[in-house]
Amino acid sequence: MPSHSIGKTDIDIAQHASLKPIKEIAETVQLAEEDLEYYGKYKAKITYEKIKQLKTKKDGKLFLVTSINPTPAGEGKSTVTIGLGDALKQLGHKTVIALREPSLGPVMGLKGGATGGGYAQVLPMEEINLHFTGDFHAITAANNAISALLDNHIHQGNRLQIDQRRIVWKRAVDLNDRALRHVVVGLGGPGQGVPREDGFDITVASELMAVLCLAEDLEDLKRRIANIVVAYNYEKKPVTVGDLGIEGAIALLLKDALKPNLVQTIEHTPALVHGGPFANIAHGCNSVMATKTALKLADYVVTEAGFGADLGAEKFLDIKARAAGLKPDGVVIVATIRALKMHGGVRKEDLAAENIAALEAGLLNLQKHVETIASFGLPFVVAINRFISDSDAEIAVLENWCSERGIPVSLTEVWEKGGAGGIDLAAKLLEAAKQPHTFRPVYPLESTIEEKIEAIVRQVYGGRGAEFSAKAQKQIREFEQFGWGHLPVCIAKTQYSLSDDPHKTCRPYDFAIHVRELVPKLGAGFIVALTGDVLTMPGLPKEPAAYRMDVDADGRASGLF
Amino acid sequence: MPSHSIGKTDIDIAQHASLKPIKEIAETVQLAEEDLEYYGKYKAKITYEKIKQLKTKKDGKLFLVTSINPTPAGEGKSTVTIGLGDALKQLGHKTVIALREPSLGPVMGLKGGATGGGYAQVLPMEEINLHFTGDFHAITAANNAISALLDNHIHQGNRLQIDQRRIVWKRAVDLNDRALRHVVVGLGGPGQGVPREDGFDITVASELMAVLCLAEDLEDLKRRIANIVVAYNYEKKPVTVGDLGIEGAIALLLKDALKPNLVQTIEHTPALVHGGPFANIAHGCNSVMATKTALKLADYVVTEAGFGADLGAEKFLDIKARAAGLKPDGVVIVATIRALKMHGGVRKEDLAAENIAALEAGLLNLQKHVETIASFGLPFVVAINRFISDSDAEIAVLENWCSERGIPVSLTEVWEKGGAGGIDLAAKLLEAAKQPHTFRPVYPLESTIEEKIEAIVRQVYGGRGAEFSAKAQKQIREFEQFGWGHLPVCIAKTQYSLSDDPHKTCRPYDFAIHVRELVPKLGAGFIVALTGDVLTMPGLPKEPAAYRMDVDADGRASGLF
Repeated sequence: MPSHSIGKTDIDIAQHASLKPIKEIAETVQLAEEDLEYYGKYKAKITYEKIKQLKTKKDGKLFLVTSINPTPAGEGKSTVTIGLGDALKQLGHKTVIALREPSLGPVMGLKGGATGGGYAQVLPMEEINLHFTGDFHAITAANNAISALLDNHIHQGNRLQIDQRRIVWKRAVDLNDRALRHVVVGLGGPGQGVPREDGFDITVASELMAVLCLAEDLEDLKRRIANIVVAYNYEKKPVTVGDLGIEGAIALLLKDALKPNLVQTIEHTPALVHGGPFANIAHGCNSVMATKTALKLADYVVTEAGFGADLGAEKFLDIKARAAGLKPDGVVIVATIRALKMHGGVRKEDLAAENIAALEAGLLNLQKHVETIASFGLPFVVAINRFISDSDAEIAVLENWCSERGIPVSLTEVWEKGGAGGIDLAAKLLEAAKQPHTFRPVYPLESTIEEKIEAIVRQVYGGRGAEFSAKAQKQIREFEQFGWGHLPVCIAKTQYSLSDDPHKTCRPYDFAIHVRELVPKLGAGFIVALTGDVLTMPGLPKEPAAYRMDVDADGRASGLF
Repeated sequence: MPSHSIGKTDIDIAQHASLKPIKEIAETVQLAEEDLEYYGKYKAKITYEKIKQLKTKKDGKLFLVTSINPTPAGEGKSTVTIGLGDALKQLGHKTVIALREPSLGPVMGLKGGATGGGYAQVLPMEEINLHFTGDFHAITAANNAISALLDNHIHQGNRLQIDQRRIVWKRAVDLNDRALRHVVVGLGGPGQGVPREDGFDITVASELMAVLCLAEDLEDLKRRIANIVVAYNYEKKPVTVGDLGIEGAIALLLKDALKPNLVQTIEHTPALVHGGPFANIAHGCNSVMATKTALKLADYVVTEAGFGADLGAEKFLDIKARAAGLKPDGVVIVATIRALKMHGGVRKEDLAAENIAALEAGLLNLQKHVETIASFGLPFVVAINRFISDSDAEIAVLENWCSERGIPVSLTEVWEKGGAGGIDLAAKLLEAAKQPHTFRPVYPLESTIEEKIEAIVRQVYGGRGAEFSAKAQKQIREFEQFGWGHLPVCIAKTQYSLSDDPHKTCRPYDFAIHVRELVPKLGAGFIVALTGDVLTMPGLPKEPAAYRMDVDADGRASGLF
């Protein structure tokens, strides 16, 4: 994350922030000590008992933060989400922020950290970025327990007649590790299991992550786990976790991971940081448990969805909100001058120089996302997340462009000023949300799989339609026979483009989306449509962030940023 | 674990026990709230600040619990350790128990749980048996981060000229998963890393587990991590984690895992449950951090070592105690009538029937371990861990056999009665420990690697000596050139026999130990000598314990036992 200001890094600011005991943060939203399970002094899980008690309470209002298509320049969506929450709190509203947990892989790889930036961060940033409360480790262990029990089932006689060439369940690690993308397991002779091809996904791409994030409670979690398709048998019929008889053990491994985690921002706003599925292969939002709990605790909840509005927001609205019965009240679309200039053709190394022409060209990307959010029937505000390199002229161009079109826009400076830098955004969002509106998903669930994909491509991506490979067409027929046609679709597409070609940045027109394969995620409750190359296991760069990380004799971290 | 009594399982007893808030347990050993980092209501880590403050305090006395060679009948070493601790507390002594953390793999596989049994358990048993405070997950992640960074180093140009045929660092999962013993990684083409043979160990067999358990503090941890040999270069010279430049990042991942975990027994005796290396490939004891902290907090510390006295106790004394400067004050050797009868030739299904002849034959196994502990110069008591099937006549035979030889013996009933069932054992141990004694390790560190192994084989196993494969002989010469000759040795041997043949139970004579290969563990600070087949990744049985596990809507576990 490039710095907005000079001299201070995110970890410097985080380590100089004063944290309140999490008990005090909890008290501000009427959570008592017995409602909490502490993890250290500044992290706590909320008990199931309390979550059940909250069921009868009225829900607060829900704001979603999304963005333009990401670029290497960085957008700062989490930073704006946190700053907006702090601003709403400064305005006197009872506010809770709901965010995803960071994955250790990118933290050790490129990112170094994913807990906001500057004076808009959730704390303790080191803990949240490293193991936090162990949720992802529990998911990794549960994921790999399914694999071990599946391979053992085959090794011990294969009662279910699983075809080891048709196992779709992969192992997982919460690391960037390209060498694990394609592996062969079970080598070494008859005592070492049955040899077969396998692969590892990063934990955030595991279906269990999506399952945990969509489950309403432990019973629903177990039911979803049982539904997960892990393989096909010799008759090409699906084999599920329930067929293996291990949904109880797997749910048991996740019994604590399902409880939302309470932390605080630098300004002591409560934040539920819980779950973190990818926004391509999965739906890209924090858990339903966290969002619903936040809505019971606060008058205003600010949450975010992964990547740009074409991926994260679409899935938040069509998958998560529909499944969980959430009704969003307003949307923030984050844009930065830097990112818009990259969409307009500027290279990353030239971003410091003013470039009005490139900015104007790049605005077409923002325009499409504005149209998309409007098409969902939701009120919205564009947030300009200010960077120190932005020129006044560039900001004026963006502001004017918005006002000419009647688009509410707010220059936010939350990185530098925390909540104070988001007061204007908060006020405009509260104003926008007052207008009457009716949330409309892109497609009804009764549509066919093809129709759903076509609808997303036209309405959300702005393409001319979808093209299906022969394999995908065959799968669609099979899936309908299996009774899976009513499920929502989750399109796995590059985050860098509205199309399925990462090089077509800004706003491509007249393109088709190429659906090469479908993957049933019966536990999550959606059908993934794979387009282009979708990486479910990132690699490490030449100079991983890990090279800079260290810890001193007292346990103080460095090298996270 | 077969039940000692009727009707009640361990999890029944555990779930009906009343736990005190961990804060109250901590207060009994003068730990204040600010010295703790809570993990839920009943688990806490002790802060580094407090551990540093404790350095100037006087140490309590240290008792080690070990056993005869394990059999499928079960010995109940952890149960006796916990019951002895409870008994010492009942006698009015300030007592802390120091135990290993269970590995999830065996819990999901055969064991179902590993936190003692009956009324001698540490609680909360479900949490300790599942993810506990996340220590093992942190070690798994750190272990696999080394692998990912190592493979990435090769992929990105291989500056260190690592020979990918000579990588000794393996990946890890904390599961029983035979299909991961031998794998090929890096398949799929040039973008997916460099193809090579690899394998996964269970996390408790990872060198990082041994490193964590032997580290004195965070600085020592980082130094040990840097020393770990991960591979050899094209010139066959060792390549370490320090050469990769990632010891800081790996230590950072372990910064919380290194802090000891405080829990309680059913009788509210404080227990530090921390770390859990295998007792074959590693040294098999809980962490030095936990043992040393316990010694500062209590007048009496009861700890255990893995497997029988030939493996766990030998390594506790020759490796851990020597490295950490611990001076044990007494040893308990646990035996059961059932296990001795199995050593005497009885099959498991016939154990319920009285069999004096078999018991007498099996006593030779106990005799060897008594000789071994005596040879270390340490006072000891034999504990008969009573089972419901034991006949009075059998117990009398064992008691008489001990008294004829002047061996202190105590019939313990801690499974059924908790600490009350261990009062006699505690009294006899306190009495024995009063006798003057001088602890003598089996070998001086200055001996050669061969001499050290020979000394263990003769003095501890009762064999005639060691035979070294050509490969092992070559390695010994290499290791001495690398300057590693001064390190202690850690013999990886079957736990079922004093010899390296698991079928030679009871007390084999005139056997040789066959050392086929050596493995340098420079981080742990010892040289592993592999004998026979040593499994560093267990498999799952035909009916894994996971099939019986479940969780209800309120998060209550079942199927652990």
